[in-house]
Amino acid sequence: MVPQILNAANGGGPLLALERQILDASAEIEHWFRSQWLAHTPPFYTSVDIRNAGFKLSVVDTNLFPGGFNNLSENALPLTVQAMSAAVERRCPDARRMLLIPENHTRNTYYLSNVARLAGLLRQSGLEIRIGTLIPEITSPTPITLPDGSSLLLEPIIRSGSRIGVEGFNPCGILLNNDLSAGVPEILRGIEGQQMIPPLHAGWSVRRKSQHFAAYSTVVREFSERLQIDPWVLDPMFATCSQVDFHAREGESCLADNVSTMLEKIRIKYKELEIKQTPFVVVKADAGTYGMGIMTVKDASEVMNLNRKQRNKMAVIKEGLSVSNVLIQEGVPTVEVVDDAVAEPVVYMVDRYVVGGFYRVHAERGPDENLNSPGMKFAPLPFDESCLQPDGTIHPDAAPNRYYVYGVIARLAMLAASLELEQTRP
Amino acid sequence: MVPQILNAANGGGPLLALERQILDASAEIEHWFRSQWLAHTPPFYTSVDIRNAGFKLSVVDTNLFPGGFNNLSENALPLTVQAMSAAVERRCPDARRMLLIPENHTRNTYYLSNVARLAGLLRQSGLEIRIGTLIPEITSPTPITLPDGSSLLLEPIIRSGSRIGVEGFNPCGILLNNDLSAGVPEILRGIEGQQMIPPLHAGWSVRRKSQHFAAYSTVVREFSERLQIDPWVLDPMFATCSQVDFHAREGESCLADNVSTMLEKIRIKYKELEIKQTPFVVVKADAGTYGMGIMTVKDASEVMNLNRKQRNKMAVIKEGLSVSNVLIQEGVPTVEVVDDAVAEPVVYMVDRYVVGGFYRVHAERGPDENLNSPGMKFAPLPFDESCLQPDGTIHPDAAPNRYYVYGVIARLAMLAASLELEQTRP
Repeated sequence: MVPQILNAANGGGPLLALERQILDASAEIEHWFRSQWLAHTPPFYTSVDIRNAGFKLSVVDTNLFPGGFNNLSENALPLTVQAMSAAVERRCPDARRMLLIPENHTRNTYYLSNVARLAGLLRQSGLEIRIGTLIPEITSPTPITLPDGSSLLLEPIIRSGSRIGVEGFNPCGILLNNDLSAGVPEILRGIEGQQMIPPLHAGWSVRRKSQHFAAYSTVVREFSERLQIDPWVLDPMFATCSQVDFHAREGESCLADNVSTMLEKIRIKYKELEIKQTPFVVVKADAGTYGMGIMTVKDASEVMNLNRKQRNKMAVIKEGLSVSNVLIQEGVPTVEVVDDAVAEPVVYMVDRYVVGGFYRVHAERGPDENLNSPGMKFAPLPFDESCLQPDGTIHPDAAPNRYYVYGVIARLAMLAASLELEQTRP
Repeated sequence: MVPQILNAANGGGPLLALERQILDASAEIEHWFRSQWLAHTPPFYTSVDIRNAGFKLSVVDTNLFPGGFNNLSENALPLTVQAMSAAVERRCPDARRMLLIPENHTRNTYYLSNVARLAGLLRQSGLEIRIGTLIPEITSPTPITLPDGSSLLLEPIIRSGSRIGVEGFNPCGILLNNDLSAGVPEILRGIEGQQMIPPLHAGWSVRRKSQHFAAYSTVVREFSERLQIDPWVLDPMFATCSQVDFHAREGESCLADNVSTMLEKIRIKYKELEIKQTPFVVVKADAGTYGMGIMTVKDASEVMNLNRKQRNKMAVIKEGLSVSNVLIQEGVPTVEVVDDAVAEPVVYMVDRYVVGGFYRVHAERGPDENLNSPGMKFAPLPFDESCLQPDGTIHPDAAPNRYYVYGVIARLAMLAASLELEQTRP
């Protein structure tokens, strides 16, 4: 079930060496993570998109409001429950009741299945859970029927002084599964006496990908020094442009300059390492998610000559927000293939623990394209069985080892998110 | 795969009601456990023998040096690794190296497979592990070949000042998988600067079953009050006799009196609850393990007329120690059956988490006999998949629910062990 690595002959060499180094140093690495968690608090939950290029193994996106718990395999669920118990114990051992606030979707049953799964896991970890919605049209408890025939009850959030809840339910804590792309709603401001998890500044109204990847670079630098490896292997380069207006065609030259510089840097690195790939960069909104507002660019001229359709696509992200800060990120091709379709691993973590993962698979996309787009599918893989159990005696490419390494990389991003949230704390 | 409950018609009624109550109160119960772990520290690892009588669901033994990690199913292993990581983080986040001290066996490859499994799990949780043996004959590193072809390296323990280790290995902590039945060896006394896990007073040279079950009664009383249930359903009655010498036939009348009183108490309880079973008691060493020195008694006269063979069997437990303190415990028949053989569940816990379990199965024993005896087998069951995931919408007898309930009962014993270790701390 381990996806095939396409260019094992071509680029597999250096990466196998890296995997071997990480496996050999696993006791050292785990000890280092433990010491990091003494100084930093991991997010309640995190999901991380990873790309394995054969010559480079990088995090390309870190989500603090994971929306795919329904994609985890059955095997991952007990681990998730156990990690949630630990997370609750650490944050609010007194908690008995928690309010889960999901995204404002009522028709995206795929997302709502995630909410149902998440609520179920939290219940199994020993909490009373009710689901409070921010959707203004929902003014009374509203059951939503899910594809599996079960029902999810969305209830309107009630504010009472500086606390929120739903009818007859006064929770100790609030778990956000809403990334606040539309900003922090009035009803969530100035809450006192109830822990907000993750904190409001983890939402996209405050968060910037560039801030995350700056923290990720710091973490990777320290990790790489310990392992005596080239940090570039784990860390995608990035630059930003502010003041971009795709509609008004403002800021195009900043984009073109940065794309050009970035492509040149990649070219130099590829030459140095004898990598025979065409460099590309990914241009995306610095704040935002859902795979919207993303394009793959192989030449600076491409961002100067966007047609109306492309400009529209880039200008608007989730909740109809317009983009103004743009991230230019080194492109990392993926060499993993599931059933002949391009695939990238997504690793799920709860508290400091890797609990599972899956492959995001897209049959109609190339190895250098964004897979988080309509048509994507999910291949739940037995990550959970293996990512905690490296086996130094077998080949780095064997499932337990590959997934252990992915779990280490994902935790570097989780640690970066911890630093990022410390830095952006109001 | 859930064992058949023999007398579901006969005694299943009351127990199903109990299981339903526990399932319905799961959020309340988890909250209560969390509050308990704020005040008490769970043992590093614990295994608990449970007996399900249909009308009674009781812990009958609690082991602080579990020896059956090799019996856990593959599914339980990631959960165990995660729980061990949490345990290490809580106890000694700075730890990098730990010394594992097993029992003094070189030929019991079944036990040594447990040691190999345990060492592997600890390594996967991010520790460097070496195995130090107390066997005086082992004076240089000695590889032992295991049934699966792998090799286990036993090394002589080296004392240096107030620390111990093995050649070239100075560990931060010491994990005992040796129950110290023979007393605390000189080399382990007065250790400073290295954490001993579990502490020395958890060993059988100090520990008494009666002390554990007194603490268990305290825990069950509080738990039962919260759930408004009869504590007897969870708690086996017990009494003790000190100064027993089976060889010299001293203390027989204390035993007979206690057996007689206990049988009468059980008879009254059975009559009150209309249970049509023959009461029995179990007589066993108050300090000791390995299922040695145990007998089932249905009439007080049986302990007065022991023949030489029976007296020999009762007089000596592990390490050839003679018995002097004896526990008289209410017998709890098991109604669980695996492949027509009598079975009892064993639940494994690491830190505060239930990580897995298995059934101890014995084809040649009756439902009122000790199954921990030669001829026993183990049926690894997917405890781990289910004991964390109760499902209130299905029947209490369904696997996830039955195992969740077993996990709750097992954790009551773990909490009792925490209290017991606090009380006996030197």
